[in-house]
Amino acid sequence: MGMFNGHFYPGLYLFSYGLYQATVVSKNVIFKESPPYPSCFPKNKTRWARLGKISYGGWLRIVIGSILTVYVVTCPDDGMVLMNKQMPPTFMYPKEWQHLTMFVLLILSGCVDVTSKNLLPRRCVVLEKGTLVLSFVELLLLMVSHVKGSEGIELQVHALVIMVVFLLLLVLMAELWAPDMSYLWMMETFLFLLMGSWLMQAGFILFRPLSGYPWQDDDIRDLMFVTTFFCWHLMINASCLLGIYGFSFLWHHYYSPSLKRMRSKEAPYHTSTPGPLYMMLQEVKQSEKDDQALLLSKTTL
Amino acid sequence: MGMFNGHFYPGLYLFSYGLYQATVVSKNVIFKESPPYPSCFPKNKTRWARLGKISYGGWLRIVIGSILTVYVVTCPDDGMVLMNKQMPPTFMYPKEWQHLTMFVLLILSGCVDVTSKNLLPRRCVVLEKGTLVLSFVELLLLMVSHVKGSEGIELQVHALVIMVVFLLLLVLMAELWAPDMSYLWMMETFLFLLMGSWLMQAGFILFRPLSGYPWQDDDIRDLMFVTTFFCWHLMINASCLLGIYGFSFLWHHYYSPSLKRMRSKEAPYHTSTPGPLYMMLQEVKQSEKDDQALLLSKTTL
Amino acid sequence: MGMFNGHFYPGLYLFSYGLYQATVVSKNVIFKESPPYPSCFPKNKTRWARLGKISYGGWLRIVIGSILTVYVVTCPDDGMVLMNKQMPPTFMYPKEWQHLTMFVLLILSGCVDVTSKNLLPRRCVVLEKGTLVLSFVELLLLMVSHVKGSEGIELQVHALVIMVVFLLLLVLMAELWAPDMSYLWMMETFLFLLMGSWLMQAGFILFRPLSGYPWQDDDIRDLMFVTTFFCWHLMINASCLLGIYGFSFLWHHYYSPSLKRMRSKEAPYHTSTPGPLYMMLQEVKQSEKDDQALLLSKTTL
Amino acid sequence: MGMFNGHFYPGLYLFSYGLYQATVVSKNVIFKESPPYPSCFPKNKTRWARLGKISYGGWLRIVIGSILTVYVVTCPDDGMVLMNKQMPPTFMYPKEWQHLTMFVLLILSGCVDVTSKNLLPRRCVVLEKGTLVLSFVELLLLMVSHVKGSEGIELQVHALVIMVVFLLLLVLMAELWAPDMSYLWMMETFLFLLMGSWLMQAGFILFRPLSGYPWQDDDIRDLMFVTTFFCWHLMINASCLLGIYGFSFLWHHYYSPSLKRMRSKEAPYHTSTPGPLYMMLQEVKQSEKDDQALLLSKTTL
Repeated sequence: MGMFNGHFYPGLYLFSYGLYQATVVSKNVIFKESPPYPSCFPKNKTRWARLGKISYGGWLRIVIGSILTVYVVTCPDDGMVLMNKQMPPTFMYPKEWQHLTMFVLLILSGCVDVTSKNLLPRRCVVLEKGTLVLSFVELLLLMVSHVKGSEGIELQVHALVIMVVFLLLLVLMAELWAPDMSYLWMMETFLFLLMGSWLMQAGFILFRPLSGYPWQDDDIRDLMFVTTFFCWHLMINASCLLGIYGFSFLWHHYYSPSLKRMRSKEAPYHTSTPGPLYMMLQEVKQSEKDDQALLLSKTTL
Repeated sequence: MGMFNGHFYPGLYLFSYGLYQATVVSKNVIFKESPPYPSCFPKNKTRWARLGKISYGGWLRIVIGSILTVYVVTCPDDGMVLMNKQMPPTFMYPKEWQHLTMFVLLILSGCVDVTSKNLLPRRCVVLEKGTLVLSFVELLLLMVSHVKGSEGIELQVHALVIMVVFLLLLVLMAELWAPDMSYLWMMETFLFLLMGSWLMQAGFILFRPLSGYPWQDDDIRDLMFVTTFFCWHLMINASCLLGIYGFSFLWHHYYSPSLKRMRSKEAPYHTSTPGPLYMMLQEVKQSEKDDQALLLSKTTL
Repeated sequence: MGMFNGHFYPGLYLFSYGLYQATVVSKNVIFKESPPYPSCFPKNKTRWARLGKISYGGWLRIVIGSILTVYVVTCPDDGMVLMNKQMPPTFMYPKEWQHLTMFVLLILSGCVDVTSKNLLPRRCVVLEKGTLVLSFVELLLLMVSHVKGSEGIELQVHALVIMVVFLLLLVLMAELWAPDMSYLWMMETFLFLLMGSWLMQAGFILFRPLSGYPWQDDDIRDLMFVTTFFCWHLMINASCLLGIYGFSFLWHHYYSPSLKRMRSKEAPYHTSTPGPLYMMLQEVKQSEKDDQALLLSKTTL
Repeated sequence: MGMFNGHFYPGLYLFSYGLYQATVVSKNVIFKESPPYPSCFPKNKTRWARLGKISYGGWLRIVIGSILTVYVVTCPDDGMVLMNKQMPPTFMYPKEWQHLTMFVLLILSGCVDVTSKNLLPRRCVVLEKGTLVLSFVELLLLMVSHVKGSEGIELQVHALVIMVVFLLLLVLMAELWAPDMSYLWMMETFLFLLMGSWLMQAGFILFRPLSGYPWQDDDIRDLMFVTTFFCWHLMINASCLLGIYGFSFLWHHYYSPSLKRMRSKEAPYHTSTPGPLYMMLQEVKQSEKDDQALLLSKTTL
């Protein structure tokens, strides 16, 4: 039961985050070429004004991480000790300590997010991305250590998760160098969606098989279907992302009035001059306020 | 018998596609430096005019995929069920479901091709390439799963196919970032040719050995000759590609009248000014109408 | 005992070097955007003036390497022979010869450092970096050879060191191409810190366990805690690096008078004109005198 | 005996080629920044003038390859048949066919070299590099196939060769994209030197051990010394390359009169204006006549 929840709810969280990020990324990609919304934030806003704009994602991570940390620490009867007092002493609760490490990472990345967005004089996206990269490096290490000793269905399911985490890590590292590249955002979003949906499925495969009977490790057919299901997840998530993008595109092109007005003005020099569009893009970047805002602040690393 | 066809005909399809693409790529590479054909398409052509220009490749994929899907689905006597009704239930037809996944991917990539070329207001090459990348990711996963459990000659033959698919995947991903790079097109074409010809050979090696006797898994000589034959395929396909390129070069330089005329005009500033040539290149890009046309439309991702 | 020292002291050296480099890199990163200290070195300084500025790091490496070389060579009773004189002859002291190779590399890289900084008419950073890359290639090869035959805890601990060495090698190679990229400096520093602190921990895990009882190779819990401890090292070193950077930032922004003065002057065009800042950055580069000065001298390779 | 020659002489050839290339590359790197020799070739030289300048490297490869091909084909008593006539038929001479494939590749790459340098209207470096890349891909495949089944010392020795071939392949592929980058030339030269010297050593280790007694596969000390010796090769070859570069640098700076004359003229604006130097660099590129001349001719791929 605990195992099922331990796969299902993280998956749900990642999938929801992926869906949210998909809408944000879609908007950003669309407005790279189309004229942007008028900037509604004054450029000379003070630090206090920025404090009012709370980083919900960061706080969410801090709250979730804290609750889980408290839960894990209070769970064992004799407290969360590192070693027992026998001779020779042995390490206690190896899995719990690994989970604790993950939750602390979650809290830390939330703190960095909040600090960067609300406390620093300028948002430092590189710091946020760097923390995320570090988190995924540790996640990868912990998962590789977690898989050691497992085999059959469990190994196959986790190997696919590890592959996704590894690709996500590569994409996040690439974003450190090319923060403005929309392909990378799309890939990141797609991999978050995939990781989320596959983790949910993993919970069902490993702990609550829908047929009511556990999957057989020594049945080659069951192993083959793990890969087949993963391919279906790939297809469904890609369609999902494409659908969100298409819907955003239609919405912003046909229903948003400010866009229409600007579009009619800009149309004449749409094909010939990239200049004004580019300048507007710069303005978008200055005023974009959502999570994907990748202002590479150069003061801090 | 079915196994032989399952390797030979996909190979033939890929090889033919590679040959076709070789001519297209050669023409594009040659006209990067030489002056292009005069653009015969009006630039203000409407959407309906574009609809008339059917994407044959896309429709071909849709038709082939649909036929194969229908064939696979109707093949089993009791229908293409996912599980049987015994207790405990087991998965049925693992290979057939994997094939079905591949065929659905073929249909989907065909649909995306047709949509991008005929229905969207602007062709979206990134979408087409992205679908292709996704298809090859799934192909790679399915092949790795397919190989599991095989050994000897079969493993060796399939490992080489997997290597080619993996390289093809890398090249396709690189094309997402550098769609204008002619080396990548050439590599992609070469790998398609190689994959096609090797799949045909694989059909013969595994299911219809020319000597009439099956290859021996435990004979080191047979294993060594698999690699040797693959090297010959490498050489032959490279020569083939070079031959097509050389022939295209000669054809377009010595027999095409429009080229000669422009060449005589452009000769004086051929060495000194890249400017006009570059501008003409831009025009080519606007007017190129074949499959390889890699207009990175920026409206859509 | 010798084994413990052989892990602990190299770790301490690397960690100290990492701490030192962290302060240097932080200063460099901060002054990329802020105005630099006034250059106190005349630009027309002669070769003799440069000779006065001794490369401490290089000399330190030469001295340490020489001492260790002498120690290893004089250690065996019958001298450091390559083969004994029995029939058939066998190789003697394989580990000692590998250590000797490492120490010679240390001396050589020190010599290159001194030569580049004090003897050449212009500093040749590429030569220094190239020597470092070569050293790490050999270190990687020797460690892979060193690990062969070990298993359990020892393998796990060393595998993590090898991973760090490999990443460090990649970063150093990337610096050959992009010597000005501050992310790479930061990553290099972080990996040096991590390698140092983990080597120290490895000494304790393998040869002086804190509990007084050796770790068990066949206990899955002990294996899991190796990874967990490594993750904690990751977190602690990242915090350490961030702390040093933050402290440097505060120090140079609030306490350094020259900075304040220039800051007040530059403030008006801080947001609008990257031009002058960039020019000053060029000046920094010409006058930066510390270890991290990555002037890519083009005369030499 | 044949085995020793089969490792020693290819190694000698590669090492000599590496030494020759080292001088060529050194000259090119030095003249990137220093003023070049005056171009002694008229720019409007005809095709016949170019035919006079024979590609010695290409012809050498053709001649060597042909001799070896004839030798291998005539070696077996009953001719170089692919299969014997027994029932069931088996493949004959697997190693000989692999060697034959390599020799044919050598001839082909020689032919391409000669064609590109003497017959084509413009030299096509990409074609030469592409052929080289293809040769190394096949070499890699054949070596991996060659190693299958071996173990101990033989495996260790060949694994290191395969590593070098793989790195060389990566460098050659990178050169397709960045043909002007001097680091890549240096790396390529270094890897050729290393491969050559290590192949010579491999001949001695495997077939003519200097002590007169064969190395022991099951002795961990012998295995460790293979890696140690490889590290020494790394160091020696790096020193060798550095020595050649340093000697070339001194020679061209202190003994070549044309250089001195131009140097005195250029000195005043040496630090301030990269412009004229860059233009001269362009001229060098137009007039450089040696093997390393990497004129990326754009007409052909």
